[in-house]
Amino acid sequence: MLLVGERINSTRKSVREAIRDRNAQFILKEARGQLDSGAQFIDVNCAVTLGDEVQDMDWVVSVIQSEFPDVNLCIDSPYYLAIERALNVYKGKGEIMINSITADDRRIDSILPLAIRYNAKLVALTMNENGMPDTAKERADIAKSIFEKVGKKGFNTGKLYFDPLIRPIATEPLQAREFLNSIPLIKAIGGVGTICGLSNISYGLPARTYVNASFLSMAMALGLDVAILDPTDANIGTTLRAANALLGVDEYCGEFIKAFRDGKFA
Amino acid sequence: MLLVGERINSTRKSVREAIRDRNAQFILKEARGQLDSGAQFIDVNCAVTLGDEVQDMDWVVSVIQSEFPDVNLCIDSPYYLAIERALNVYKGKGEIMINSITADDRRIDSILPLAIRYNAKLVALTMNENGMPDTAKERADIAKSIFEKVGKKGFNTGKLYFDPLIRPIATEPLQAREFLNSIPLIKAIGGVGTICGLSNISYGLPARTYVNASFLSMAMALGLDVAILDPTDANIGTTLRAANALLGVDEYCGEFIKAFRDGKFA
Repeated sequence: MLLVGERINSTRKSVREAIRDRNAQFILKEARGQLDSGAQFIDVNCAVTLGDEVQDMDWVVSVIQSEFPDVNLCIDSPYYLAIERALNVYKGKGEIMINSITADDRRIDSILPLAIRYNAKLVALTMNENGMPDTAKERADIAKSIFEKVGKKGFNTGKLYFDPLIRPIATEPLQAREFLNSIPLIKAIGGVGTICGLSNISYGLPARTYVNASFLSMAMALGLDVAILDPTDANIGTTLRAANALLGVDEYCGEFIKAFRDGKFA
Repeated sequence: MLLVGERINSTRKSVREAIRDRNAQFILKEARGQLDSGAQFIDVNCAVTLGDEVQDMDWVVSVIQSEFPDVNLCIDSPYYLAIERALNVYKGKGEIMINSITADDRRIDSILPLAIRYNAKLVALTMNENGMPDTAKERADIAKSIFEKVGKKGFNTGKLYFDPLIRPIATEPLQAREFLNSIPLIKAIGGVGTICGLSNISYGLPARTYVNASFLSMAMALGLDVAILDPTDANIGTTLRAANALLGVDEYCGEFIKAFRDGKFA
């Protein structure tokens, strides 16, 4: 499974403050910590700072690539101008993931050309003009319609990752099951991946790491391809290694045993 | 999910010694700890003591019911005379689970009449004269053949629980996936349950609780009905509560939050 580090996200107060104060050391520490913990992509979200998202995105991407020039970046914004700026600023040889489009045509028309031009992976949220779907089947139907739209517009659908949208179990107890059921339905479209922002599942609960870890295992068993999560959470990191061993990705548990010996376990 | 406490098992050295020394306090402590931690059945296995299994089973069941007269018991033996003795000795109003038959006719013919007479739940291992199957489909095929055999002999198949046999990932890295895939295939037989002895999965590995917890989450997401596990392991207990909340069993997370407030978390 591909791991995207979620921590440089402006919904976190400390990140908002670091962006406002142009505190490069804080951003670099967050990037470094996540890469050291196994993140393969670094998510960058500047959508809820009080400043200008385009300027903020420019600054954060510049800071990260000053120390990690070839890092893989997940540009997390609904706004094509912020995405475009990030892509312009980034000079590295790493991979880019754009997060995200929806079924909304205007969003597709503004963001898809950027994804094509920069040969980026593209995350599509399974939501449309009616908002977030409730059932697994509705999620898969929306995914199918996005798949067809972007394919027609010349996008390589092998780079498409659908996010079936996790909702907190504390308020919507039956949505986790629908999310899980949607994974094989979406993958049945063929040649596409699935992705999720893991920690939303436990919003409002205590001991969130246990809920996140259990749900990560479940989603991986159902076929999830990419998770946006906090790789510096030792319980999550250990669970991820255990799940990779269980699903035959880490055959004969070599990575699992090495991580244990290196003292990386919770 | 139904929880069977695995700890009173003669494969554990301390349990073997307690049985040999007729140390009732040790057995009672193990029973009490598991019941306090949420076990709904207590597994009793005396198969690998150096003594006589029938006598040992008689003693352990007598000891447990001396303090817990109506406890639900999982009589864990391949040997019909040991099972019969346990059933004779047990005087409580609890439920009995017999663990286990296989596709072997002699084992079915000796154990099935006991299950019918005592109205017990019955565990069937998905193995036959060729040993343990490798693929999910082979597991489901054996389950189907056992289902038909015992149905014809008058057993209420609603009390049948198939164990698709977990094998350690440390030596057989692809078997966990086959086990998981077999759960929905077996449940498709209709009206039957699935069960597993969880901790076998991590045999030979360090940090076993993380592997067990991740696999428990995966198996529950695929539909596992009963797990034989160590409920006194706080990480497992917390994972189980998280998984129940995630799968909508503990709607609105009431049990999860209560357990957290009661300090039951790892």
